[in-house]
Amino acid sequence: MSRGRLEAFSDGVIAILVTIMVLNLRPPSGDRFEDLRAMVPNLLIYVLSFVMLAIYWNNHHHLMQVVERIDGRVLWANMGLLFCLSLTPVATAWLGPHWRASGPVLAYGLVLLAAAIAYFILTTQLLRIHAPDSRLAVAIGQDWKGKLSMVGYVVAVLLAIVLPLAAIAIYIAIAVVWLVPDRRIERVAADRAAPPG
Amino acid sequence: MSRGRLEAFSDGVIAILVTIMVLNLRPPSGDRFEDLRAMVPNLLIYVLSFVMLAIYWNNHHHLMQVVERIDGRVLWANMGLLFCLSLTPVATAWLGPHWRASGPVLAYGLVLLAAAIAYFILTTQLLRIHAPDSRLAVAIGQDWKGKLSMVGYVVAVLLAIVLPLAAIAIYIAIAVVWLVPDRRIERVAADRAAPPG
Amino acid sequence: MSRGRLEAFSDGVIAILVTIMVLNLRPPSGDRFEDLRAMVPNLLIYVLSFVMLAIYWNNHHHLMQVVERIDGRVLWANMGLLFCLSLTPVATAWLGPHWRASGPVLAYGLVLLAAAIAYFILTTQLLRIHAPDSRLAVAIGQDWKGKLSMVGYVVAVLLAIVLPLAAIAIYIAIAVVWLVPDRRIERVAADRAAPPG
Amino acid sequence: MSRGRLEAFSDGVIAILVTIMVLNLRPPSGDRFEDLRAMVPNLLIYVLSFVMLAIYWNNHHHLMQVVERIDGRVLWANMGLLFCLSLTPVATAWLGPHWRASGPVLAYGLVLLAAAIAYFILTTQLLRIHAPDSRLAVAIGQDWKGKLSMVGYVVAVLLAIVLPLAAIAIYIAIAVVWLVPDRRIERVAADRAAPPG
Repeated sequence: MSRGRLEAFSDGVIAILVTIMVLNLRPPSGDRFEDLRAMVPNLLIYVLSFVMLAIYWNNHHHLMQVVERIDGRVLWANMGLLFCLSLTPVATAWLGPHWRASGPVLAYGLVLLAAAIAYFILTTQLLRIHAPDSRLAVAIGQDWKGKLSMVGYVVAVLLAIVLPLAAIAIYIAIAVVWLVPDRRIERVAADRAAPPG
Repeated sequence: MSRGRLEAFSDGVIAILVTIMVLNLRPPSGDRFEDLRAMVPNLLIYVLSFVMLAIYWNNHHHLMQVVERIDGRVLWANMGLLFCLSLTPVATAWLGPHWRASGPVLAYGLVLLAAAIAYFILTTQLLRIHAPDSRLAVAIGQDWKGKLSMVGYVVAVLLAIVLPLAAIAIYIAIAVVWLVPDRRIERVAADRAAPPG
Repeated sequence: MSRGRLEAFSDGVIAILVTIMVLNLRPPSGDRFEDLRAMVPNLLIYVLSFVMLAIYWNNHHHLMQVVERIDGRVLWANMGLLFCLSLTPVATAWLGPHWRASGPVLAYGLVLLAAAIAYFILTTQLLRIHAPDSRLAVAIGQDWKGKLSMVGYVVAVLLAIVLPLAAIAIYIAIAVVWLVPDRRIERVAADRAAPPG
Repeated sequence: MSRGRLEAFSDGVIAILVTIMVLNLRPPSGDRFEDLRAMVPNLLIYVLSFVMLAIYWNNHHHLMQVVERIDGRVLWANMGLLFCLSLTPVATAWLGPHWRASGPVLAYGLVLLAAAIAYFILTTQLLRIHAPDSRLAVAIGQDWKGKLSMVGYVVAVLLAIVLPLAAIAIYIAIAVVWLVPDRRIERVAADRAAPPG
């Protein structure tokens, strides 16, 4: 089964998700520059969601570079990831105007948590059909960053009930941690050109 | 004629259809977590439509792997399939808030039936230009699953007039049957690497 | 300059145009099957626009198969075509509910005419950098179908002022003529595999 | 790291941005041809934004042709560019009906300025990992056009406060300058086929 079309389809979906979030950025009805002020929270939440989706695209890109084969279960695990990511725009649209309220902060965190779990399942399904000494297995390793992110989202989601702003701070912190591209996979991928022995 | 651009165009259209359905998931106007409850039917119908489109993408992906050539009629049969699939978002948008009413359930089923027929026509057009012992012909075989789905949709559509919920149950059942990737084609595609003799 | 990315970008834009027209197909507010009746004109106009865009994709696909090189002017001629095609959704959205009025029928025809002219300019720019005996020049030939379509659109646009329905009939007739894939190019493209002598 | 998927993702995002701007072109509510007159400013601003995005796609296309390698920082610089470009539709939607007011003209200019800076950063990041005598370094050269555009946008943005129409004239002038494809890179890319010695 070819991984090329899987990459193309995932790229397509993520590119569209990134851009349709813009449709929720409505311009002000007035025409003064100060009228933009009301858009600021929406814009900042859009930045956060854009970065989150860009991180997933980046990690997906790195992951696929060391994948040797895929099968039906990998295809569906990937669809599960795309489904979770597809809820980002609606979670963003709700959070934008209500970023101080528990409900939208909680819902946003649940979407991020679901995406993190779906990504974890995708790596699990890929590991199932790769050798323990494969480039992929070496690159993923213990996946501490992925596991800690899931713990972080669980904590943030619980915290959102009482302290929504603290939960948002955790979302931002996790995004910052991931902004650094996955050196593990980048290193392994760079080795590809080098002779195996 | 190259099948690469046909795949790329189909992937693009399906990726966009999957994602623009999200635009119909409007966030609640309130800011409490309980306000999400009103979104639940919409969300479940979205899951169903997402899975349906993902199944078509998956099957299209598998089908194209064993295609050896395409022609003008195949291009148009493929366009017909994309047209039918493109009605999914509007059918989903109608069904979301009216999932207990006959009309929207019936219309949703007609779109699914039309897509199933269009896919059947696409396979027919492909078989026309492939040898009876081609990988494609072997992979499609009698296509019981495709034919039974069409019968299932006809039954569901008729049932929708009196028992809309039973019709939805049939739609879900057909989706579940298809969730299993097409072993026939996957087996034949896997044979590709093996020597023909 | 590679033609691959030009194809990919054009496919992307056309795939998105085809699908965002669906966003203008609003589901009825009622929940009875009969409520769909009000959607019928919109749906039929959508079919027409879908077919028109599919024809352009098809012809673009065939044209690009015999292209040997592109340059900056070809890139911009292609952008001009994509711009004209990008007006299809708004022309469709206006025509849908007003298909008996002169204004929207006229505007729709002007968009079709502009796209036909842009496609003609694209072929002219391609011919400029291909030899008179190139596969491309042979395939395009006198381009009677393209020239007659432009004449047809001019007639239809003038007719729209007094007889909107007759203009729509001409739009449909031109679409039907183009539905047949371009045999000229298909023949030349098929020859590609055959030895040149 | 492969540049192919970076190109594909960027193409996808730009293609979607170009087309979703069309969603802000609402058809008139009336059905007379004269009703289109109210759309004219919106349409002209759409043309400007379409041309701007097409220029970025064109330059990105040319730039990538001479890129030999990318890394994580290039990926993020590219994401930054896509983010700035993604604000074009909302800036366009605000400017359309308010093209005589300082605020929207200023905001539109800030988006253009941000995109120009992001493109400059992308070239800087690429130069960092290419040799000074690489095809890329030769092609970019002193980048006078890029630097002058940034100065032009700064002037225009300041001017927008007192003379919005003059600022729009500068935006158009910069677009016209860029409409000419980047001869420098086109020349270097054309040399690629020629032997290096």
